[in-house]
Amino acid sequence: MTSRKNRLRVIPLGGLDEVGKNMTVFEYGDDMVVIDAGLMFPDDDHPGVDLLLPDYSYILHHKEKLRGIIITHGHEDHTGALPYLLKDLGQSVPVLGTRLTLGLVKGKLEEHRIKQPKLREIRPGGHINLGQFGFDFIQMNHSIPDSVSIFVRTPVGTVLHTGDFKLDQTPIDGRSTDFAGLGRAARQGVTLLMSDSTNAESSGHTPSEAVVGEALREIFATARQRIVVACFASHIHRVQQVCDAAVASGRRVVVTGRSMINTTHIARELGYLHIDDADLIDAYDVGDMPAERVVVLCTGSQGEPLSALARIANGDHRTVTIERGDTVVISATPIPGNEKAVSRVVNRLYKAGAIVIHEAKRGVHVSGHASAEELKLMLNLIRPANFMPIHGETRHLHAHADLARSVGVSDENVFILENGRCLELSERGVKPGEHVTSGVRYVDGLAVGDLGHLVLRDRQVLSSDGLVAIVVVVDTQDGSMVGETEVLARGLVLGADTEDAIQSARVRADKVLARLSSERVTDPTVIKQALRDSLSQYLWETTRRRPMIIPIVMEV
Amino acid sequence: MTSRKNRLRVIPLGGLDEVGKNMTVFEYGDDMVVIDAGLMFPDDDHPGVDLLLPDYSYILHHKEKLRGIIITHGHEDHTGALPYLLKDLGQSVPVLGTRLTLGLVKGKLEEHRIKQPKLREIRPGGHINLGQFGFDFIQMNHSIPDSVSIFVRTPVGTVLHTGDFKLDQTPIDGRSTDFAGLGRAARQGVTLLMSDSTNAESSGHTPSEAVVGEALREIFATARQRIVVACFASHIHRVQQVCDAAVASGRRVVVTGRSMINTTHIARELGYLHIDDADLIDAYDVGDMPAERVVVLCTGSQGEPLSALARIANGDHRTVTIERGDTVVISATPIPGNEKAVSRVVNRLYKAGAIVIHEAKRGVHVSGHASAEELKLMLNLIRPANFMPIHGETRHLHAHADLARSVGVSDENVFILENGRCLELSERGVKPGEHVTSGVRYVDGLAVGDLGHLVLRDRQVLSSDGLVAIVVVVDTQDGSMVGETEVLARGLVLGADTEDAIQSARVRADKVLARLSSERVTDPTVIKQALRDSLSQYLWETTRRRPMIIPIVMEV
Repeated sequence: MTSRKNRLRVIPLGGLDEVGKNMTVFEYGDDMVVIDAGLMFPDDDHPGVDLLLPDYSYILHHKEKLRGIIITHGHEDHTGALPYLLKDLGQSVPVLGTRLTLGLVKGKLEEHRIKQPKLREIRPGGHINLGQFGFDFIQMNHSIPDSVSIFVRTPVGTVLHTGDFKLDQTPIDGRSTDFAGLGRAARQGVTLLMSDSTNAESSGHTPSEAVVGEALREIFATARQRIVVACFASHIHRVQQVCDAAVASGRRVVVTGRSMINTTHIARELGYLHIDDADLIDAYDVGDMPAERVVVLCTGSQGEPLSALARIANGDHRTVTIERGDTVVISATPIPGNEKAVSRVVNRLYKAGAIVIHEAKRGVHVSGHASAEELKLMLNLIRPANFMPIHGETRHLHAHADLARSVGVSDENVFILENGRCLELSERGVKPGEHVTSGVRYVDGLAVGDLGHLVLRDRQVLSSDGLVAIVVVVDTQDGSMVGETEVLARGLVLGADTEDAIQSARVRADKVLARLSSERVTDPTVIKQALRDSLSQYLWETTRRRPMIIPIVMEV
Repeated sequence: MTSRKNRLRVIPLGGLDEVGKNMTVFEYGDDMVVIDAGLMFPDDDHPGVDLLLPDYSYILHHKEKLRGIIITHGHEDHTGALPYLLKDLGQSVPVLGTRLTLGLVKGKLEEHRIKQPKLREIRPGGHINLGQFGFDFIQMNHSIPDSVSIFVRTPVGTVLHTGDFKLDQTPIDGRSTDFAGLGRAARQGVTLLMSDSTNAESSGHTPSEAVVGEALREIFATARQRIVVACFASHIHRVQQVCDAAVASGRRVVVTGRSMINTTHIARELGYLHIDDADLIDAYDVGDMPAERVVVLCTGSQGEPLSALARIANGDHRTVTIERGDTVVISATPIPGNEKAVSRVVNRLYKAGAIVIHEAKRGVHVSGHASAEELKLMLNLIRPANFMPIHGETRHLHAHADLARSVGVSDENVFILENGRCLELSERGVKPGEHVTSGVRYVDGLAVGDLGHLVLRDRQVLSSDGLVAIVVVVDTQDGSMVGETEVLARGLVLGADTEDAIQSARVRADKVLARLSSERVTDPTVIKQALRDSLSQYLWETTRRRPMIIPIVMEV
C-alpha cells in the first residue's frame, strides 16, 4: 500500500462549482504549497455580505508545512483572500508571483496594513523549488498582463495548473503564450491537467485583444464630442488600447475612479502601461479642455452603483458630466448577475443624451478566457494522463469534461470534483480521496468568519417579508401584564389601513396574554412562543406574508 | 387653436423604459380605449413584492369614457393587470381579444373571481368600432399564437400599434404575418407607428420557430433515456413542437407544472394544440413507463424556485426524478435578471447526472421578437409619418429610434417618451403633451397599492444590514427606568462574540439613559432619538454597518 507520505494530494478549496475564490492546495509529505488565494463577490443570496473567501482552515491547521503561496495573476478572484490568509496564518510565508502580480498584491497588502510581506518575484520561463516541489512558470495570455501557467513537479508526477488563460495569437504587448514551453514540458509527461473552464460553453475561438483596438480607433475617429470609456482597471492591455486610440485621435486621457487611478499608476511605474505625462490630464482640469480633445477612462463597467461611470450616468460625478452627443463605451461584458445593474447605467446614460456603445455592439470587448477550440488545443498539446476541469460552475466543468472526452481523454481519467475533495496522485494512479474542511468565509463589515446561514436566512426573511415586533412588559412579582402591548411593523404592508391592522394585532395578542395570565403562565419562553404563533397566524390570514416575528418580553 | 376635443391623446401608462406592464391609453373626445393591461415581475429592487402593475388611476378617473380594453396577445405582461383593473373599475367594460387570448384571460379572471366579464372575440383581419375609434386587427407572429397588431383609426389619423411581434416566414402553424393587410392599411397613410423594441439591439433576423423543431427532433432521436423539456407554458408553438418530436421518436408526453397543465388544457380545447390523448400520460404513471418512452414537459425555464424543473433538479418533484444519463432541454433564454437562477438549476441538473442542453447550445430556443432587420422592414412597409418605439428599456427604445432614422424617418418625427407622457395627434401635427399620473402599483401578498418606497427602503436596509432593537421601560410617574434594557439583533454580525457586543451596546445605551434621566428628559421621542444615535454610532464603529435601529420605549 502506498503510504500517505508518497502521495500528492491536490485539494481545491475554491473555484469549483463557482466563478471566483480560486484556491488549490498541493500537499506532498511534509510540504504544502498553495496556488492562488482568491475572493468572490457576493450575489443576491448573500444580502449585505461584502466578500466571500474560501474556508482555508485546512491550510491554517497545517501551516507548519506551508512553503509558499503562488499567485498565477493579479485578479482579485486569485489574490483577494491573500491579506486575510496571511493575517490568519500569523507567520511570514513567501508569496510568489510575476512582477505585475506582485505590484498589485503589494498595494492590497498595504491597504490591509500587512507589514513586510515576503514577496518573491517569479519570471515566466523560470523555475523555482519549494520543499520537495519544483515549479516551472509558462507565459500565458489573459485579460491582465503577466499571467502564468504552472507546471508542478512532484516525486509522483507533474501537474499543469493553467491559471486563467486564452491563446491570443496577436497579443497587443507581443508576449504570446509560450507554446514551446508548454510543449517541452508536455513531452516529459503530464499526469494531471487542471484547466480553466470559464468559457468551455463557448464554441470556436476567443477573438484576439487586438480586435478591440481597431473598434476603439474607429469609434474615436468619428466621435465629435467627449468620449468616456469604462473597463476593468486591471485590464492593462485594454487601458493601453484606450490610451493609444486617444492619442491617435488627438485626445488626452483623464483617469477617474479609485481603482483605475491606483492600477494605472502601478502599471505605469512597473512598465506595463505606456502613456506620456503630456497625454494625461487631471480630472479637475477636464472642464477647461474642449470636449473633442478628451477621453475619460473610468471604472464602473459592471454597473457598480458607487463607481465613476454610475456617478457620471447619474449626474453626480464631481468633474465629469454628460452632454447630449457624448460617446460612452462600455468595454466589458456584464458578469452573470450584473446584467440588470449594467442595464440601469446604460439606460441612464441614454437618458442623459449619450451615445452608448456596449458589448453587444461593434467589438468593444473580447473575453480573456479560452473558448472550446483553444481548450481542445490545450488538451491536445499537453496530452495529460488525467484531466480535472477547474474555475467554473458545474455546467462549465461538465462542458469542459465533454471537450476532453471529445479529444480522446478516457472517461475514467476525467475528474469533476467539489471544493474540499482531494485528488490523490501516487505511483499507483490517480483517484479522488477524502474531503477536507471547505466552504465559505464571509467578510461582512469588519467581521470575518462563518457568519452562518442563520444571519443570511434572517436577512432573506427580512428582505422579502419584513418584521413585526411585539413588546409586552410583565411584572415578575405576580406575572401580570404592565402597561400597553406595543406592536410595530417594518418592511411590511399591512393592508389599506396600517393603524387598524396594528390595532387588531394588538387586540389579538392581548387575548393571548389574558389567557396565559389566567392560566398562570409566567415563563417568558412560553409567552414568546404563544405571541409568535398567534401573530404569525393573524398576519398570514390578513397579508399572506410570513414576516419575522420578534416577541420581546420585558420583566420589571 | 385645436380644441382639446379634436386631439387624439396616446398615453403610454407602462412599457416604456421597462420590459413589462404594457398599457397604452387612446383618448379622443369623450372616448377612451386601452390597448393591453400587463404586469411586470419584480426584480431585486423590490424585495418581497409579488407583482408590479402600471398605475392606471388615469383610467379610473376617466372611466365614464372607457369604451373597451383590447388585448394584443395572451402574455402576462399584456394581460396580467386586467383582473386588478376590472375590479378597480367596478363596472363592466368590454375586453376584446382573439380566441386564444380570451381563453387565457378567462382563466385568469376566474382565478380572481371576476364574474361574467364582457369578453368580445376579435378576428385577425377583422374590424370593430368603439366610440369614435375604429380598429383593424392584423395577424402577427410571436411566441404565442393568435397575436395581433392593431390599426387604430381616429378622426385625426391612423396609429399602428404592433403589439409584440416577429416576422416568421415559416411559422409552424402556417399562419404568417399578414403582410398584405399591413401594406393595404399602410397605403392609406399611417400617422404614427408604435413598434416593439425588445430586440432592437439584436442585428439581423430572428430565426424561425421551425428551427427549434429540427433541433428537438435531432436531440429526441439520439437520447437514450428520459427527456425533460422546460419552456414557457404559453409558448403553444414550442409545446406543439415538443409533442410532435416526442410522438415522432416513439415517446409519450407527461405534462407537469400548474401553468403548463392549465395552458395546454386551454390550448387543446380551443384547437391551438394538437396531441392525441393516447400520446399523453399522467404524471403519476410516469414511473411505470420505460425511460426511453417518456418526455416530461414542464415549467421552470426561468429557474423559478418552486417550478417543476427546479423541483426535479432538487430531487423533490413528486413523480419525476433524474437518473444519470437523462436529457434535460431548457427551451428558453433567461430573461435579464434570471441568469443566476437558471444557472443554479442547470448546475443542479448536471450534479444529478443529467445531460443538459440549454439555449447557448444547439438551437433549442429562438426569440419571439423581431430583430433589427425585421424592425426596419416594418418601418419601410408602413412608412409612418411619425414613430414611437415602445416595449423596452431606454436602451432598446434608443436602438429602435436609430433604426428608424437609418431608414429615413426624420429625427423630429421620432418620439421617445416616458410612461405617463401623452403624445398628441391633431390636424396640426404630432407633439408630446402633458404628463398624467403614472407609476407603479405593487401587489404584495393580499395588498395592492402604492406600497411606497418606505417599505421597500426598509426591506433593503433590513436585507443588507439587519436590525437592532432596543427596548427600555420607563415609569411614567417619575421618568425613571424600570428593569433591564433589552438589546437584540437580527441579520447582523456583531463581531467574534455576539454576547459581548450586545452587552457593550446595552452599557452604552444605559449611559445615554442615565444622562437623559439626570437631565429629567421624559419625552419618548427624545429618548428614542438619543438611543438611535448612540447605537448607530456604536455599531458603525464596531461593524461598519448601518442596521435599522428600532428603539422601543415602553411606558408603565
